[in-house]
Formats: sequence, structure tokens, C-alpha cells
Amino acid sequence: MGLTAVAARGSRARPLRPLLSAGLRTLSASAVRARPRGLVYEQHGEPAQVLNLKEIDLAELGDSGVNVKMIAAPINPSDINMIQGTYATLPDLPAVGGNEGVGQVIEAGSRVTSLKPGDLVIPADAGLGTWRTEAIFGEETLLKIPPDIPLTCAATLSVNPCTAYRMLSDFEVLKPGDSVIQNAANSGVGQAVIQIAAAKGFKTINVVRDRPNLQELVDRLKSLGADHVITEEMLRKPEVKELFKKIPRPILALNGVGGKSATELLRHLQHKGTMVTYGGMSKQPITAPVSALIFKDVKLRGFWMTQWKRDNAQNKEKLRGMIEDLCDLIRKGQLTAPACQEVPLIDYQAALESSMKPYVSAKQILVM
Amino acid sequence: MGLTAVAARGSRARPLRPLLSAGLRTLSASAVRARPRGLVYEQHGEPAQVLNLKEIDLAELGDSGVNVKMIAAPINPSDINMIQGTYATLPDLPAVGGNEGVGQVIEAGSRVTSLKPGDLVIPADAGLGTWRTEAIFGEETLLKIPPDIPLTCAATLSVNPCTAYRMLSDFEVLKPGDSVIQNAANSGVGQAVIQIAAAKGFKTINVVRDRPNLQELVDRLKSLGADHVITEEMLRKPEVKELFKKIPRPILALNGVGGKSATELLRHLQHKGTMVTYGGMSKQPITAPVSALIFKDVKLRGFWMTQWKRDNAQNKEKLRGMIEDLCDLIRKGQLTAPACQEVPLIDYQAALESSMKPYVSAKQILVM
Repeated sequence: MGLTAVAARGSRARPLRPLLSAGLRTLSASAVRARPRGLVYEQHGEPAQVLNLKEIDLAELGDSGVNVKMIAAPINPSDINMIQGTYATLPDLPAVGGNEGVGQVIEAGSRVTSLKPGDLVIPADAGLGTWRTEAIFGEETLLKIPPDIPLTCAATLSVNPCTAYRMLSDFEVLKPGDSVIQNAANSGVGQAVIQIAAAKGFKTINVVRDRPNLQELVDRLKSLGADHVITEEMLRKPEVKELFKKIPRPILALNGVGGKSATELLRHLQHKGTMVTYGGMSKQPITAPVSALIFKDVKLRGFWMTQWKRDNAQNKEKLRGMIEDLCDLIRKGQLTAPACQEVPLIDYQAALESSMKPYVSAKQILVM
Repeated sequence: MGLTAVAARGSRARPLRPLLSAGLRTLSASAVRARPRGLVYEQHGEPAQVLNLKEIDLAELGDSGVNVKMIAAPINPSDINMIQGTYATLPDLPAVGGNEGVGQVIEAGSRVTSLKPGDLVIPADAGLGTWRTEAIFGEETLLKIPPDIPLTCAATLSVNPCTAYRMLSDFEVLKPGDSVIQNAANSGVGQAVIQIAAAKGFKTINVVRDRPNLQELVDRLKSLGADHVITEEMLRKPEVKELFKKIPRPILALNGVGGKSATELLRHLQHKGTMVTYGGMSKQPITAPVSALIFKDVKLRGFWMTQWKRDNAQNKEKLRGMIEDLCDLIRKGQLTAPACQEVPLIDYQAALESSMKPYVSAKQILVM
């Protein structure tokens, strides 16, 4: 499948093919099924070298376990870093790769109250190991999602849209008409920010890297609800002042890049505004003039969805409320999945390779 | 007066000489007095060139004016920057230099309720122009302070000790035993931080630049209450780990330097801690690794006393409460003035020259 075709289709979520044909029938635990398999690594290293598709023994279901048949799971940059051993949290080895995805409950232990066979579930926390066909998970590690959400959306809901949602909610009190500036606007988080902000009436200024097919990207992000799309170079020019005659200076900046790009966001931020850093694609640190902190009183913060989930582990209602809000937006067509390329689990090597290429904007989704 | 002698004596506040002999008698408005004079600048530039000691006409007292005889006023770096025209806020020209100091009320307008002749006052806001012998100020621009506070302390109370006090109060909830790390520990703010923190039971790690008479400085800061005094170089070495076996990692870092020094503070900060920047002596920006923001969840903030006073202009009780707290500490001997060198107003050129020399730690105080 050509990437251009994917990108052009990517602005609308659609169900994954295997499910279009299979339908969403409840699978029976007693049905004859293939032995559970998963992408396992026994040591850290380059994913293509250390990952192997292997049969995995299922844990005991017990009273509180939930048997989940995984449907689809994306390959995120953080999954790659975790396997490489460079991420901030690392699992005990051997481990199954993947931290996000969607599955269906096949069977639930007798004490499980929140889930029943047929329910669609996504991980409530990172580290579950989602690149597998089937698993027994603890009830508390899963979140039920409504059955009418496109599976591509469901499989990619628990990291990027949640990150976008929290960053737009937890750092500044924004009202309709307020503006938000972000770099990496074409990333998974960036696209979710554009859509959630548009749904809430916040104006977005979206910064992207220059590229040959820039107009195509601008059009696509505008079709998602972006108010302004500009390149890093345009942001540095004096002409950008014209922009701020049309809309207020942003009170919130979202930074997924670092380096000079972050310094530029900071420069355009309102007095007392906040820049939230959630990624560092440029591999450069953040540089802030002392005067911005002292005299403009800007605040520099960071956000990590994994930490938020840990901090709110005793308050699952907050997590459920967010998922409900996001599912409402999906239902209304206001939040769609990013451009995705579906790859059968067995072809994981090709998916890994594609996911690690620079400038590839289609997310690789493993279909189990 | 030799600087070493000043430094050695500087850890104890003492009254200014002119007042020791003059006593704190209430001056009479009708007494024969010299014409009011002040250090005026008509354009921005180097202070030695643009400042002139001139006679100044007094404004009308009116119903709500307060006639103040200035006693003493320090030369702060921000005063210099304001005259140079490089500071964040600049007065209308011509202007009188100086933003801090202590004076005595000679006469108060009939509607003035909070001040009476004989009261000692300090500025409630920046921009008053304190380098003058006498002025009519608005009641709301002045704060009464108790008569039993050494005048050197009073003259230097409204910027540095207030900055230290707010930074220790407004960013993290510290309890006795918690630790705070700061660079520029020998600055006016740094010394106030050491003393206020010691009074509240917070441990301080004080970072200073290496110098020939390091031990003398270490001893002096420890006599003020510093728990640990280390050089920038020591802070970068692995041995510094030993320090954090004795005391908890700091939850608050106070940065008056910027550049590499700030990055080092950040490196030792606890998870979810805050670094507050109030100065940039190195003239270098702040550089923060993306991972510190995302995975350590550290917060980067700034503080500017002038902005705080503006933000709290309608809430003078908060300002008065802070001044009372600080005066209590002064009375108990827990907060002293920094090393000061007193210079008669007429010798302002010598005082300006001394105040702009690098590595001079005695604050120049103009005596009117």
C-alpha cells in the first residue's frame, strides 16, 4: 500500500479489515483456537534483531484474570525505545513488545465485575505487552470501551489522544477563542491536539517541517480542524507578526521537538503562558532565555502519559471520564485515527522497518 | 574601607553611621532644610555618564501625598540596567535612579491614614526613584516598617529578602528537613535564602564559584546558616553523590546564574521538583534536557519581585505580612543585611564604579 494513498485516506478512521470480514462476534473460549503467539524479546537491542514471534503460554485465568484476544496494536516510537533499552521505564525480561492496542474479552474470572465476554478493551496502563494474539490480563489493567468505536481509533486511543487531551486540560484554563501553538503538528499527538482543540473551540497554530508536498500536508491538517499551519522557517520570520493580529498570542505551547523549535514556541507564548514538553524528536535539549522565565513569567512543564496513569492509578474514574469524552468526539466524527498502515502480525519485520523510517507519517498497526 | 574588612563585618547588620549620630528624631517639616537633590538621568546610557546630582522640585503634598526624607538607598544591579535602558521596565524620562531604600516621613497629607511623621518607610513598588534626599510619594507607594530594624536591613529589605522569601514560599510546599539547592549563594538573594531557609528548618546546598579565598566564603555562608557550601566544579563530580546520602535531594532549586550552572541544579533536583530562575548572571540561557521535563516531571519557573508586587497590588496585606515576617527574623538575629559599603550621596560616582566591578560582594549604599 502506497503511503500517499494511506495519507489521503487517513483523515477518516475506518474499521480494520480483518474485523470487517470477521464482524464483532463474541469469540467463544472453548472454540478451537491457534496457540497464543507474541513478539517476545529476551534482551534489549535493535527490534529487528531481538524480537521473535513465539508461542506463549497463557497464565491461569483465576478469579480475577481476563482472557483477551488482541485485535490490533500499533507500533509507537516509545515501544521501539523500550525494546532498545533507552526508554525511561523498562520491563523485566523476557517481555512481549507493545504498550497500546485493542482486544476483545473472551472469558473473565468469577470475581471480575467490570468486564464480560465480548467487551472491547484497551490497556489502562503501559507495559502490558500488546503485540500478541491473546493474553490473560488483570482486570485493573484494562479499560472497557464502547463497541461502536472504529477499531483503528480504539487501538490508538490510549497514548496520543489521551496525551493531547490532558495537555489541553491540565496546564492552562483555556476558553473558546484562546489559542494554542504546537510543533510536530503532524505527529500522532499533534493531529489529536488539532482535533480536540477544534472541538473545544480553541484556535491552533500548527508548526511543521518544510517538505516538498507541504501544501498537501497543510490541506490535510486543515481538514482536521487546524486554524493555521506554518513551517519552522515561517515562524522565525518577522512576517509571523501578522498572524498575531488575527488571533491572540497562545497561552499554551505544546512541544514534541525540543531544540530551536521549542525556543521559537516560547518566543511567541503569551505572558504567564505554559510550554508543555511531551517529546524530543530533534534530540536537542530545550533552551530558554532567562528573561522569558523572569520577565514573561512563562512556565516550562513536561507531560508523560505513563506517569499520569501512575499518579491517577487510584482514581480510575478520571481515566474513564477521559476515555468517554474521547469516544464521544470519535462518534461525532471530531476525532479520527491517524493515517495507519495495517500489517499482519507475521509480517512484523516489515512493519518495524517502516515504523523506524524518518518522515513516514503512517502509523504501523499490527493486526493479530 | 577595605572590602575584606567589610565582608568580615557584613554578617551582622548595623545601623548606618549618619543615623547613629543623628538618632532617629522626627524631622520637622518646617525646619530649615537643604533643597531636595537627587541623581537624575535624562537619557539612557552608562550611569557614570548620564546620572547627575541635581536639585529637584518637590511635588505638591496635597491631601494624599507623603513627604519623605530619604535616609539610605542601595545600588542594585537592576538599578544599573534600568539606567542603561536594558531592563524589562523603564521609567519615563527624566527619572531619578534607584528602586529600593529607607526613608522617614516628615509630613503626611490630611487624608493619609497609614503613615504619620516619624514613621520609617520603604517602597511598596519598584520605580520610585530612591536616590534622592527627599520626595513627595503617594501613600500607596510606601510601606511602614518598625522603628527597631537596623537601617541597613531596612534599606535592603524590599528586593532581595522579599525575593528569597517568596521563592521559598510560593513554588513548593517545603517542610523542615526538606532541602533546597541554589547557585549564586553569595549574592544578596542567596544570603537571604540561606538565612530564611535556616530559620524555617530547610537544609540548603549552596553553590558558589571557586575563588582564592574560598574557605573564608564557606565559613561566612555557614555562619549565616548554610548547611553545605560547594563549588560549581564540585557539583559536577561523581563524589557529590555522597552529599545526597546525608540529605534528601532538593525539591526546590533557585537559579540566579543560568547556563551550565542551572543545568547542574536541575540534574540534582528531585522528581517533580521546581527550579525557579530569578537572575541570569552568566548571561547564558537555561538548557534543560527534554527527559528532565517529561520523565522527571521537573517544573521550570521564573520569579520577579516587581511582577509579584504588581500582581498583588490590590492585596497589600500579603505584602505587609511578608514584611512583618522578615522584620521578625531580623529582630531575632536570623536575617541580617548583606555586606555593605556606605557612601555619601555626593560620592555617587565612586559608589557606581564599585557596584559595577565583578566579584565585589559588598553592596554600595548611598547615604543621603
